Amino acid sequence: MFKAKIYVNYKPSVLDPKAEAIKTALTRMDHQNVQDVRYGKYFELLLQGDDEAAVRAQVEEICDQLLANVNMETYRFDLDVA
Amino acid sequence: MFKAKIYVNYKPSVLDPKAEAIKTALTRMDHQNVQDVRYGKYFELLLQGDDEAAVRAQVEEICDQLLANVNMETYRFDLDVA
Repeated sequence: MFKAKIYVNYKPSVLDPKAEAIKTALTRMDHQNVQDVRYGKYFELLLQGDDEAAVRAQVEEICDQLLANVNMETYRFDLDVA
Repeated sequence: MFKAKIYVNYKPSVLDPKAEAIKTALTRMDHQNVQDVRYGKYFELLLQGDDEAAVRAQVEEICDQLLANVNMETYRFDLDVA
């Protein structure tokens, strides 16, 4: 059994309106020392299997096909034995 | 300068329709070995400051007031020197 922790973020070249909105709100709330905001999605999947390489390939497939829009987003993940 | 990595998730008692939709899609895509799906938000903030305790208190305030709906969501964060 493996646990995959997957982070999906916009590519730096893609405008991220949610992150901009959070930054504006923080300035209004007197948190001027916040220099940068990044906003993304976080997934945890619990996968049955013994072969780490196979599970890793499966997680990559799931990210490419379902969890990330690879035109606009990048992803990375950690795989731990669960 | 500190970097805060913030994870916001629904409380376990709150129904998470996005996670359910992902689970259904994975089953349809022949990934039946995926046992559990969690879906959340991930933020990275870059904060200016020298006093770790003060920055930590500030991040908690930002999470409580802006990034998480504490009625339905929980959050956790890691703070690293950047």
